[in-house]
Amino acid sequence: MTYCVGVLVQEGLVLIADTRTNAGIDNVAIYKKLHVFEQPGERIVALATAGNLAISQAVVSLMTDGWENPDTGHVETIYDHPTMFKTAQYVGRSIREVYRIDGKNLEQSAGSFDVAMLLAGQVAGGRLRLFMVYSAGNFIEAAEDTPFLQIGEHKYGKPILDRAIKFTTPIPDAFKISLISMDSTMRSNLGVGMPIDALTIRRDSLERDIHVRIEPGEPYFHDLRERWSAALRAAHTAIPVPPYHGKEPL
Amino acid sequence: MTYCVGVLVQEGLVLIADTRTNAGIDNVAIYKKLHVFEQPGERIVALATAGNLAISQAVVSLMTDGWENPDTGHVETIYDHPTMFKTAQYVGRSIREVYRIDGKNLEQSAGSFDVAMLLAGQVAGGRLRLFMVYSAGNFIEAAEDTPFLQIGEHKYGKPILDRAIKFTTPIPDAFKISLISMDSTMRSNLGVGMPIDALTIRRDSLERDIHVRIEPGEPYFHDLRERWSAALRAAHTAIPVPPYHGKEPL
Repeated sequence: MTYCVGVLVQEGLVLIADTRTNAGIDNVAIYKKLHVFEQPGERIVALATAGNLAISQAVVSLMTDGWENPDTGHVETIYDHPTMFKTAQYVGRSIREVYRIDGKNLEQSAGSFDVAMLLAGQVAGGRLRLFMVYSAGNFIEAAEDTPFLQIGEHKYGKPILDRAIKFTTPIPDAFKISLISMDSTMRSNLGVGMPIDALTIRRDSLERDIHVRIEPGEPYFHDLRERWSAALRAAHTAIPVPPYHGKEPL
Repeated sequence: MTYCVGVLVQEGLVLIADTRTNAGIDNVAIYKKLHVFEQPGERIVALATAGNLAISQAVVSLMTDGWENPDTGHVETIYDHPTMFKTAQYVGRSIREVYRIDGKNLEQSAGSFDVAMLLAGQVAGGRLRLFMVYSAGNFIEAAEDTPFLQIGEHKYGKPILDRAIKFTTPIPDAFKISLISMDSTMRSNLGVGMPIDALTIRRDSLERDIHVRIEPGEPYFHDLRERWSAALRAAHTAIPVPPYHGKEPL
């Protein structure tokens, strides 16, 4: 399992990903799922991946090494696209290329072609954008009304995002709320685990702002988890108990 | 979709269910999913259902009208069992009977035999117990270490239960926390909706304690939702923003 969340706000964006992969519950490992492609001043592109590890690794390798665009005959990498929209199309094409190579055999072995990606970033001259690319290679984009996108185990951590994230939320708050969302997910699903990779990008900066790996026991995140637990306890304790009495007819 | 949660604590139990059913997003209706079978002083049995409505209605009708036990030749209803364990077995047999009648045809029409039930209650001379019965007719039981069970859309509302429910939680608090869990679920999944049916049973009372339908706009539940939202806002606002800076190597 995996959990990644991307938040696009006025000031910029936040992208966080856990690092746990598992093939069954008895085969657990740590893999980086947050990949950053940066040419400061020219482009900052980040990718967070969920789903089958063989597929997402193949897609990332393909885009890093480059592969030939059948329409132009040119070998293209993820650095070769003039806009984020064209970059998203390239990510989609790369997923379809991996499907072309591996999809049939995967399905014959009762596997499914399961992959999802968050693509975020900005290319000089264009806007900062956040996309979710599906296994079919098509994609949707975050917008002001719905400024976050999630992949992987998204349900446990969604209520806090639904309540707290707005397009006007400052980056540090969006970062903090994303970490709370990650905490809720890790508490309820063993397939999502530490360390956490986190990235922030300021709008129009064309480079990484913060890019950290948060290891188990790291003091701020540990404190955030404790404070959030204590605050939830205080929150439900402060609500009066239900006043209902009586019985409906059967 | 559906969301039902049952909580078994020292003092007794809480069972709540939403009432929204949908066959596609354009066919939405209100149906009672919380069924109570009571013989005060003798037995109090409650059932909350999720999954295919045709299946759960058929199972409830079968158990209310009674059907012949092939081993004994007697017609048995849900009122005819000397213990909660035997009642759970009867619920499981009734699910299997509906599968025998409808399962093949359902599967031929590309439907799946999808049903889950929470069974809660006490029979005179026995313990208060809470079970989750699967579509295969087998079941698990809540225990002191894991005192709650959920069916339907369970993920959005699970974090608060994981954090706040213990076997020693008083019934009114367990009731309140279950309503918060329902609120989180309704906010994130349109397939779960008001009104809410709620039941509490005090251990060894052998009758319903509170049994209410909470309608949209009902003042306490409305206030609980507002207070919970405000408290969550205050909780994340009070946590300091992440202190991270710097960039990991790529």
